[in-house]
Amino acid sequence: MSGGVDILLNEQQAHYLVHVLRLPIGAEIALFNGRDGEWRATLTESGKKKTRLRVEGCLGPQQEAADLWLLFAPIKRARIDMIVEKATELGVSVLQPVFTERTVMSRVGDERLRLIAIEAAEQCERVTVPELRPAVTLASLLSDWPKERSLLMMDETGGGQPIAQAFSRHPPGPAALLVGPEGGFTKSELDALSRLAFATRVGLGRRILRADTAAIAALACYQAICGEWRDEP
Amino acid sequence: MSGGVDILLNEQQAHYLVHVLRLPIGAEIALFNGRDGEWRATLTESGKKKTRLRVEGCLGPQQEAADLWLLFAPIKRARIDMIVEKATELGVSVLQPVFTERTVMSRVGDERLRLIAIEAAEQCERVTVPELRPAVTLASLLSDWPKERSLLMMDETGGGQPIAQAFSRHPPGPAALLVGPEGGFTKSELDALSRLAFATRVGLGRRILRADTAAIAALACYQAICGEWRDEP
Repeated sequence: MSGGVDILLNEQQAHYLVHVLRLPIGAEIALFNGRDGEWRATLTESGKKKTRLRVEGCLGPQQEAADLWLLFAPIKRARIDMIVEKATELGVSVLQPVFTERTVMSRVGDERLRLIAIEAAEQCERVTVPELRPAVTLASLLSDWPKERSLLMMDETGGGQPIAQAFSRHPPGPAALLVGPEGGFTKSELDALSRLAFATRVGLGRRILRADTAAIAALACYQAICGEWRDEP
Repeated sequence: MSGGVDILLNEQQAHYLVHVLRLPIGAEIALFNGRDGEWRATLTESGKKKTRLRVEGCLGPQQEAADLWLLFAPIKRARIDMIVEKATELGVSVLQPVFTERTVMSRVGDERLRLIAIEAAEQCERVTVPELRPAVTLASLLSDWPKERSLLMMDETGGGQPIAQAFSRHPPGPAALLVGPEGGFTKSELDALSRLAFATRVGLGRRILRADTAAIAALACYQAICGEWRDEP
């Protein structure tokens, strides 16, 4: 991106600015592409066929999101959409779908999820979009795990440390939160995870939460206890 | 409820047991009505017209949910449904819709929300259903506030304490979490809330979260830091 350039919006972007936000010609907005920082732009044309912005100048350098991955098993469409929307608002940097033994869905819907993440990023004024990685099996992900990244797995079986305790003991540095499918992890998956030095089993109370609830809850607790929400505004 | 009694299920209950959970005749389930504790029952009939359970015996006394209220501004239907489902899973005892100055919805849909709360309670094996109170204005709720109950309000303006800090300083006892509508509270509402000795303004980071995200995040942090999730399993 650079100053003085005109940008022609696609239909969805134009709809959002003109019909949802109801911006008039001349309105100033902040733009980002997840790479070049944040830019000031002006709405210069909003016709039936073309909606155009002029990029004016740079507002600030690219900010990095926290280095936080969310690993989640593909679940029903409405609930996976919810996970992607909320995880984007809650500041994850990587969305990693993971096939576990009890995962029943075999497709993820990458393009749909990417659009949901972009819309959520726009909505919450986040200037980055999380990276949506291709789905992999849990076994292959663990066999190739970057050892400096701690893996905090949500364990419904009662075998985990209470989440505030686990997260407050968590060393600073890169982290990944893992949430299983409805039905949870199998015993052999739990056993395998327990043997890994970089993995911690974390409990979210006695009730069995839905997978999307567990993912949102775990991310909120992470940001509150060891992430971005600790800072004074 | 008492042992030896037969219970005829309504259509929705029957559908859940027979088609969703696929229970056969003779299957044992746990029953609750939010008042008499938890009871063991057997599926004795599952025909097209009638589905019947026999209550066998009491499994345990009524458990109380944490004394935690969620006050939320009515928002779009899909998002309010989400709040009610997740808040039920996350253990609130009272759901209180609140009209604020920027609330745009005038109807709440009590019966629909009550059914969502019941289904969520069944799903997560919670033996109570949160009480859904009639919607009131924020002003009238505050003028009649029970002073021993602390009010933790989610403040998007940057004027709040970081949530982990605010919640870890929170005294034990009854609490209410307040989440405003999309668009937030008005200045006069924030000023009024700031003058109340029982109210604390709480921050959830720098990004503007959707109202449903803020509600779910605040409840998860509450349970993790000062609620039920602190206990070892």
